[in-house]
Amino acid sequence: MAQGKNAFYAQSGGVTAVINASACGVIETARSNRQQIGKVYAGRNGIIGALNEDLIDTSLESKTTITALRHTPAGAFGSCRYKLKSLAESAAEYERLIEVFKAHNIGYFFYNGGGDSADTCLKISQLARTKGYPIQAIHIPKTVDNDLPITDNCPGFGSVAKYVAVSTREASFDVASMAKTSTKVFIVEVMGRHAGWIAAAGGMASDRKTEIPILILFPEIPFERKSFAAAVTRKIKRFGYCSIVVSEGARDATGRFLADQGLTDAFGHTQLGGVAPVVAGMIRDDLGLKYHWAVADYLQRSARHIASKTDVDQAYATGRAAVEFALAGKNAVMPAIVRISNSPYRWTIGEADLNRVANREKMMPRSFISRNGFGITARCRQYLMPLIAGEDYPPYRQGLPQYARLKNTPVKRKLANTFNL
Amino acid sequence: MAQGKNAFYAQSGGVTAVINASACGVIETARSNRQQIGKVYAGRNGIIGALNEDLIDTSLESKTTITALRHTPAGAFGSCRYKLKSLAESAAEYERLIEVFKAHNIGYFFYNGGGDSADTCLKISQLARTKGYPIQAIHIPKTVDNDLPITDNCPGFGSVAKYVAVSTREASFDVASMAKTSTKVFIVEVMGRHAGWIAAAGGMASDRKTEIPILILFPEIPFERKSFAAAVTRKIKRFGYCSIVVSEGARDATGRFLADQGLTDAFGHTQLGGVAPVVAGMIRDDLGLKYHWAVADYLQRSARHIASKTDVDQAYATGRAAVEFALAGKNAVMPAIVRISNSPYRWTIGEADLNRVANREKMMPRSFISRNGFGITARCRQYLMPLIAGEDYPPYRQGLPQYARLKNTPVKRKLANTFNL
Repeated sequence: MAQGKNAFYAQSGGVTAVINASACGVIETARSNRQQIGKVYAGRNGIIGALNEDLIDTSLESKTTITALRHTPAGAFGSCRYKLKSLAESAAEYERLIEVFKAHNIGYFFYNGGGDSADTCLKISQLARTKGYPIQAIHIPKTVDNDLPITDNCPGFGSVAKYVAVSTREASFDVASMAKTSTKVFIVEVMGRHAGWIAAAGGMASDRKTEIPILILFPEIPFERKSFAAAVTRKIKRFGYCSIVVSEGARDATGRFLADQGLTDAFGHTQLGGVAPVVAGMIRDDLGLKYHWAVADYLQRSARHIASKTDVDQAYATGRAAVEFALAGKNAVMPAIVRISNSPYRWTIGEADLNRVANREKMMPRSFISRNGFGITARCRQYLMPLIAGEDYPPYRQGLPQYARLKNTPVKRKLANTFNL
Repeated sequence: MAQGKNAFYAQSGGVTAVINASACGVIETARSNRQQIGKVYAGRNGIIGALNEDLIDTSLESKTTITALRHTPAGAFGSCRYKLKSLAESAAEYERLIEVFKAHNIGYFFYNGGGDSADTCLKISQLARTKGYPIQAIHIPKTVDNDLPITDNCPGFGSVAKYVAVSTREASFDVASMAKTSTKVFIVEVMGRHAGWIAAAGGMASDRKTEIPILILFPEIPFERKSFAAAVTRKIKRFGYCSIVVSEGARDATGRFLADQGLTDAFGHTQLGGVAPVVAGMIRDDLGLKYHWAVADYLQRSARHIASKTDVDQAYATGRAAVEFALAGKNAVMPAIVRISNSPYRWTIGEADLNRVANREKMMPRSFISRNGFGITARCRQYLMPLIAGEDYPPYRQGLPQYARLKNTPVKRKLANTFNL
């Protein structure tokens, strides 16, 4: 075991409302185990920071600042979209990582990300065997897409799900008020290019006590324009209005994304479009109804102001567990969230073998989608409900949330050479 | 004075996160003055409810439900977009209103809306003089656009402003994290077709303690593509990323809305577009930068979960004051918010003559917009800050806000004839 060695921590891929809560868990737990772990060095902009020897000395941040990470959205050290390939294909990069780790006495590697970074983490975990460099690599799950296997759910998802559920409920109250003489259909576009987990959360806006007519367009269900129009008509007839939650990944039977409409402007230039305006156009053309549409984009995944308490707690717990796993001498593992019971909701942290995590996507079970393809089932509700439960408000000052900004002081470079990404 | 008579209350135009707080103020205050005011009848879907003799008996709602209106977004009785014209042009409608008011012993008319409804309210207030029907008409200000004169600000605006400020701050933290290898520019489209009040609120996301590079595209400042691109480039050079808050009303020097790009799809069909994707296209074409864009639409004005406490308090206070004005025998007035001091922020309710409110729009002063046209000034901050201050969270259950749903029991009709709208 690499006692007293320093730790490397990096954030990878799209950030979330709670990835910094995981960072908080890592740093606080490492700080209370100074005998075994020296300093926590964070990669500036993820793994790129390691390749560039651009490390951040988190030990220079105050206890207060690190604690504030728990309520701060996005990636405090910067993230990146940069995928290391196999050891053979990316040999120079792995060599460089070892060089940097060696120079800074790094014996622990904590990688906070989704499926791609789990794969990278797995490869790092093999460096001891393949390159003779002793390192323990622990992956910390993070993704709004909720598509990692083994773990019951992914930190980051619960908060975006809560945002979508709350926002859909609120906008539905709005359109219900307006429906008599104006807007009858409200469309909101949400994330999830491959899986409908986030779109499913829109269905939570409606429940027994607060029934709301909602149709969900899942990537899993091939879009069929006629049956969609018929479904909208039924909702309007019964409720007078309708809300539509559409996944950015919604596609037709041929697999073509609904968002890809080949839009051009008056000069023939290609234009950008989301899927929400496309669905709005259908509402107008097929049904002649007034509509409004919204695209939530980054607002949904950065919305720390309405984060789920479950999500914040789990993000922190997986960060803490990652360090505890390292202290216990483990390698190539990921703390996984294990659901013990639904009601009352109880969970614990288990251990997932990275071999079983990397390169596998967890799709939404068909049993979570209602038979007609436009809604969620009771099983889906049972799954989602605890994940959006609880509020965990950040502190405010003068009307605005007070999020942590770190000093992010660089660690003095020790290597003469640089690395070309 | 029409002692013991019933009151009519209606919600008009686009709803807000706090218009029901005004309804709560009206109903609670009327209930504690039963000697002078009989029942409060709400118009189902605004003034249309009066014309159709479709009245809601609010006395059948429990105290708990009425109290819950204070934390419920949108219009609990339904709103409408329906403008009464002059007494001459809409004579049949005014006759009908008198007929309905007479049938239900209505002596107080409370109209909760923006500029158009202030005008309607003024005309109702003249019915005593013009038609011999004794009624006191009081207007209650409501508009996210913040464009009513006399009052320092409009209930509804503070909450949408807070939503935009908070969301812009959060999404900016997100793009800052991603900027090294991916998204460098984030664009969010906000409401405000005529005035930049809401867009200005995006500027509040940045302050001395949390500096954020933000550019605002106001409807007041003719959009100039070159200087915009240059401004983005400067921000990116200095900060590595940039957030753009664009008003739906942004337009070029010829007055054409940026959103009107004459989009057509592959089949030549006209397509809908917001202004955010148009700006995103410029970022791509002129600067070659990666971007993300969002359109907040209804999400911003229904976001009761992040309402401003100042706004909720003022919405309630204007509702209460409207009833108090009526009890004091006033007619053709509107409770106006009067700012006493900025720091500490102190305000009170004043009285505005409806003649001075109706048909006048309050534009944003040029002194609120920075010289280069892309930001807000210190004066603007001073104005906005108290309006977004304070949080007023709704209660939650199982992860979701618990908003009131009323029984909305109809008052028994007394008239044989119906009215064709």
